[in-house]
Amino acid sequence: MATVSIVMGSDSDMPVMAKAIEVLENFGIDYEVRIISAHREPDIFVEYAKTAKDRGVKCIIAGAGKAAHLPGMCAAVFEGPVIGIPMKTSDLGGVDSLYSIVQMPTGVPVATVAINGGANAGILAVKMLAMTDFTLAGKLHDFIVDQKESVEAKDSKLQNEGYKAFL
Amino acid sequence: MATVSIVMGSDSDMPVMAKAIEVLENFGIDYEVRIISAHREPDIFVEYAKTAKDRGVKCIIAGAGKAAHLPGMCAAVFEGPVIGIPMKTSDLGGVDSLYSIVQMPTGVPVATVAINGGANAGILAVKMLAMTDFTLAGKLHDFIVDQKESVEAKDSKLQNEGYKAFL
Amino acid sequence: MATVSIVMGSDSDMPVMAKAIEVLENFGIDYEVRIISAHREPDIFVEYAKTAKDRGVKCIIAGAGKAAHLPGMCAAVFEGPVIGIPMKTSDLGGVDSLYSIVQMPTGVPVATVAINGGANAGILAVKMLAMTDFTLAGKLHDFIVDQKESVEAKDSKLQNEGYKAFL
Amino acid sequence: MATVSIVMGSDSDMPVMAKAIEVLENFGIDYEVRIISAHREPDIFVEYAKTAKDRGVKCIIAGAGKAAHLPGMCAAVFEGPVIGIPMKTSDLGGVDSLYSIVQMPTGVPVATVAINGGANAGILAVKMLAMTDFTLAGKLHDFIVDQKESVEAKDSKLQNEGYKAFL
Amino acid sequence: MATVSIVMGSDSDMPVMAKAIEVLENFGIDYEVRIISAHREPDIFVEYAKTAKDRGVKCIIAGAGKAAHLPGMCAAVFEGPVIGIPMKTSDLGGVDSLYSIVQMPTGVPVATVAINGGANAGILAVKMLAMTDFTLAGKLHDFIVDQKESVEAKDSKLQNEGYKAFL
Amino acid sequence: MATVSIVMGSDSDMPVMAKAIEVLENFGIDYEVRIISAHREPDIFVEYAKTAKDRGVKCIIAGAGKAAHLPGMCAAVFEGPVIGIPMKTSDLGGVDSLYSIVQMPTGVPVATVAINGGANAGILAVKMLAMTDFTLAGKLHDFIVDQKESVEAKDSKLQNEGYKAFL
Amino acid sequence: MATVSIVMGSDSDMPVMAKAIEVLENFGIDYEVRIISAHREPDIFVEYAKTAKDRGVKCIIAGAGKAAHLPGMCAAVFEGPVIGIPMKTSDLGGVDSLYSIVQMPTGVPVATVAINGGANAGILAVKMLAMTDFTLAGKLHDFIVDQKESVEAKDSKLQNEGYKAFL
Amino acid sequence: MATVSIVMGSDSDMPVMAKAIEVLENFGIDYEVRIISAHREPDIFVEYAKTAKDRGVKCIIAGAGKAAHLPGMCAAVFEGPVIGIPMKTSDLGGVDSLYSIVQMPTGVPVATVAINGGANAGILAVKMLAMTDFTLAGKLHDFIVDQKESVEAKDSKLQNEGYKAFL
Repeated sequence: MATVSIVMGSDSDMPVMAKAIEVLENFGIDYEVRIISAHREPDIFVEYAKTAKDRGVKCIIAGAGKAAHLPGMCAAVFEGPVIGIPMKTSDLGGVDSLYSIVQMPTGVPVATVAINGGANAGILAVKMLAMTDFTLAGKLHDFIVDQKESVEAKDSKLQNEGYKAFL
Repeated sequence: MATVSIVMGSDSDMPVMAKAIEVLENFGIDYEVRIISAHREPDIFVEYAKTAKDRGVKCIIAGAGKAAHLPGMCAAVFEGPVIGIPMKTSDLGGVDSLYSIVQMPTGVPVATVAINGGANAGILAVKMLAMTDFTLAGKLHDFIVDQKESVEAKDSKLQNEGYKAFL
Repeated sequence: MATVSIVMGSDSDMPVMAKAIEVLENFGIDYEVRIISAHREPDIFVEYAKTAKDRGVKCIIAGAGKAAHLPGMCAAVFEGPVIGIPMKTSDLGGVDSLYSIVQMPTGVPVATVAINGGANAGILAVKMLAMTDFTLAGKLHDFIVDQKESVEAKDSKLQNEGYKAFL
Repeated sequence: MATVSIVMGSDSDMPVMAKAIEVLENFGIDYEVRIISAHREPDIFVEYAKTAKDRGVKCIIAGAGKAAHLPGMCAAVFEGPVIGIPMKTSDLGGVDSLYSIVQMPTGVPVATVAINGGANAGILAVKMLAMTDFTLAGKLHDFIVDQKESVEAKDSKLQNEGYKAFL
Repeated sequence: MATVSIVMGSDSDMPVMAKAIEVLENFGIDYEVRIISAHREPDIFVEYAKTAKDRGVKCIIAGAGKAAHLPGMCAAVFEGPVIGIPMKTSDLGGVDSLYSIVQMPTGVPVATVAINGGANAGILAVKMLAMTDFTLAGKLHDFIVDQKESVEAKDSKLQNEGYKAFL
Repeated sequence: MATVSIVMGSDSDMPVMAKAIEVLENFGIDYEVRIISAHREPDIFVEYAKTAKDRGVKCIIAGAGKAAHLPGMCAAVFEGPVIGIPMKTSDLGGVDSLYSIVQMPTGVPVATVAINGGANAGILAVKMLAMTDFTLAGKLHDFIVDQKESVEAKDSKLQNEGYKAFL
Repeated sequence: MATVSIVMGSDSDMPVMAKAIEVLENFGIDYEVRIISAHREPDIFVEYAKTAKDRGVKCIIAGAGKAAHLPGMCAAVFEGPVIGIPMKTSDLGGVDSLYSIVQMPTGVPVATVAINGGANAGILAVKMLAMTDFTLAGKLHDFIVDQKESVEAKDSKLQNEGYKAFL
Repeated sequence: MATVSIVMGSDSDMPVMAKAIEVLENFGIDYEVRIISAHREPDIFVEYAKTAKDRGVKCIIAGAGKAAHLPGMCAAVFEGPVIGIPMKTSDLGGVDSLYSIVQMPTGVPVATVAINGGANAGILAVKMLAMTDFTLAGKLHDFIVDQKESVEAKDSKLQNEGYKAFL
């Protein structure tokens, strides 16, 4: 059973999607990963999205670039929350992906994160699951504390070694 | 039997789509018009697009705004040419619709026309059909001549009445 | 106790935020609404966000325009999921709000919806809560069916009355 | 006799245009390729576009960058469908090319594909021709099936080898 | 004989083009005004641009909107300087017109002025002609002095009446 | 003697500039207001900016739209801090003004505020002056407290009267 | 005691921030440098900004990228002037950072400099401090003269060696 | 005596400006080249622009990047035509330079060419001068013929060697 389903339309998106996978692994969340194109295999896509609930999926993370329809189509078929990751594009920087994902019509939201925001998509999924999972909420709190300490460590280095140590 | 299928996700797109309809009517082309949302009724949408060929449809004209997935999803399911009309949007002017329609991935093109370019979508459909239909090609030629004469008439008025007649 | 907290920095955002409120009311979800400016009352804001969990808040919906910091700062202080609504702006159409909300750094995601997407923010909150609430999931399913039927009704009208009935 | 005419204003556009050529070759469609600048040789351009029909051309694929006038001028002179490919530009990413090609006035549409969308321009031409050519429609169907299987193969690899095989 | 030729593709551009006409009239420069569409009447357009020199035209002012090809095509056919005016557009504000006019390829410049910059196009034509016309240079100098005095008058009013007189 | 000099190139900018003036008046800061165009009266402009210091000016607030050179040219001539206000423009929304003001080269900064940010320009000037003026710093503190209380009052109204009171 | 406080949310911003530091060092101004994330350590951030005044800080220079909240949050908590530096971003070029910093609401200005404008942020701080510090004003004048001479030297080289010496 | 004056604010612009210089040299036009910063040496700049006419200058070519004021300030001081070249910028691609140059207010036009359009600026200057110089007009005609033949040669190569010779 997969609690989170991660899907992308092209294997070229994997480096960004892997950031989401790593977050889920770090939090011990069951997941599945799929390469499915809503454009090139609409039947497989619809089957995938329709049966997600039966596979135990509570949340989908979908990444796509350019005319990025995959997250929005997931949100059309799957009734649970869908998190969309706009891919950076070589020509328009990813603003095309962003608009195609975030500007969804009323009734069919996609929870959009930053361009190439793979890790944040994973963290957002964790935050959703932790709403009713106290153990996960505890791990999430520790993660947030770790983040804070990581910045503090850099500031300590700055105070000790001076700014030129960062150049 | 409908040679061209016109589809939009929302009835608010009708004023733009009507321009395409009027072109088809003027050229005597059989058409169907549908309001179908790929986001809100994915099953109906897939059924519509899959059976289009059986209804005799040779070309689909799809209009959509914001995260405009309808034309691209038509192109994913229907094997013939799909013409996409990006709707003007109140916040981003339609650049969101344009990117969502035109930036399609390799293998699944959408023939995109200008923002709010309803008439041009109809004319483009006519041009496609006229490739192998001599009668239609003749009508198209007349239409192009009419266009030319319409501009000539305005220039004649300008030469006769002066530029202030246009203010 | 409020399950969802809705917050905006300015009362001028209320027409958009009201769309989210109405969704929550329709789904019978407890909520609170606040006008709090992270810029003008940072102390009150921090207190609000820190104590949200103790008030039972599982999810925050924050709307903001221009240099829209409120959703991101909610995500910095509150450990649960934060949904951000970029407000349309009179000069830049809301692209400033959108970038300020969606382009969050790694570790601090904001689930961003469309510009002025108040209703979708509410629906996204419902989808998050319905992940583990079967009653709510049932209502959500009904809502989705209603959406579908609403589009079907428009298409029926189109088939019966013709496209000119929509002009 | 050439069924499709491919034209570009500069030989620097050839790598993108070659993708369209390869599609036509794969589908066994007769084509011609020309380097003609509407800006630098307007007479040659007009002659080219006026006589295209007599050479058997049913569809023109035109690529251009920056203030990309070539596709639009083809559509002004040639009465059949014109497919426009906006070239990526080093300064503005191709948004200049895109606007110059897609925002055509009423009466003179250009079927615009994605920035650098050479292959899609070729496929769109095939789709137009396949509207009334059953053999070509059959090949097109096989091409679409191949596309689908290509994605399925990647997903199979993913399921078998794990996501790290793609990094 | 017309020293300056003013051309637009649509009579809807006349309010902006009239500003250029008024400048030429104020400076006593012979001009012609034409409504000619490079897209809808390419033959007439080419004839117009080719014979401009024989009509005594030293400079063309061309205005166009959206995929604004008219100025660039004038520059392709007419060997003298061409001044381009990008029209404001209702969807993209005129950035489409601007890119289509200013981003011309090497060898075929268009002297582009501001969006809706009709008056400035006229003044630029005057400046070109005044390079070798001392009488015109004198009038131009007076115009520049007038401009200066007009601003000085406003500042005097401000000093005398206070800023609230301008609200 | 004027501590702050407010300058604009056109009286059409006055409604925005008046917001800065009102702030200075509320804080009891001496100011001068001028309408001077760096483009139309460069000599007067240079004289104005060169002599500002002798008139006691410690800070200039300059507003301008479109190709907004006035703030940058103030910063080129006047050695003290210059605050720039980008005016909203009817075609590009003010992004042209913003880029023209904020993207200054190294060595010549302009302290840029939001598009149409007249009030903020005034407040920023107050903040600069309050760095070494304890009385002014006290007034500034009171102003900030007032701002906070104004938002609190709106939230109180919301809690008492409900969100519909704001629609 | 630090007169100027320099703060950034990530050590990756240091190369740009170092330009500001170097300016302050060259002018002999006391400064502190901190790496503090408003998003990842909101408590530390608030403490930092609240106590800045007590550490003698008269002005804060804050740099941030993407959804760049740090400068705006400094301006929310610290009552003195805040200078914001938008970082260039790999996807959107820094327009996201710019909008997030400059488009602040009324009452909470951030003095925004150019994208990656580290040196200019430092110079702007100097200009603010020099308003009431005659020694610093003198150094600033010398700096401005140096800048001028540096350009003059390049022009001299150009006149002596020709333009090809710069290629 | 210099007929055309070429000016840039920074020697980093020289590679683009050199394209304009080479055009002038090829056409045998007297020119001067200067590195002058309107921002860093406003006095030198004003002196330069005011005395240009006395040095025989009929036209100025000015290049600048980012908040590109140099062309506009030339147009403010020098009464003849000014050609502006927007420099490509590393962050915004040159759209900042373009807006800062082209969006000039009424009365002070700058003849703007494409981003990095150095050669076109030179050609535009030639076109202006050739309006009343028959010898130059003849050279210009030859140049235009050469351009045409250069494209024809590439098309001949394409017809002879096939498209793969260009990959």
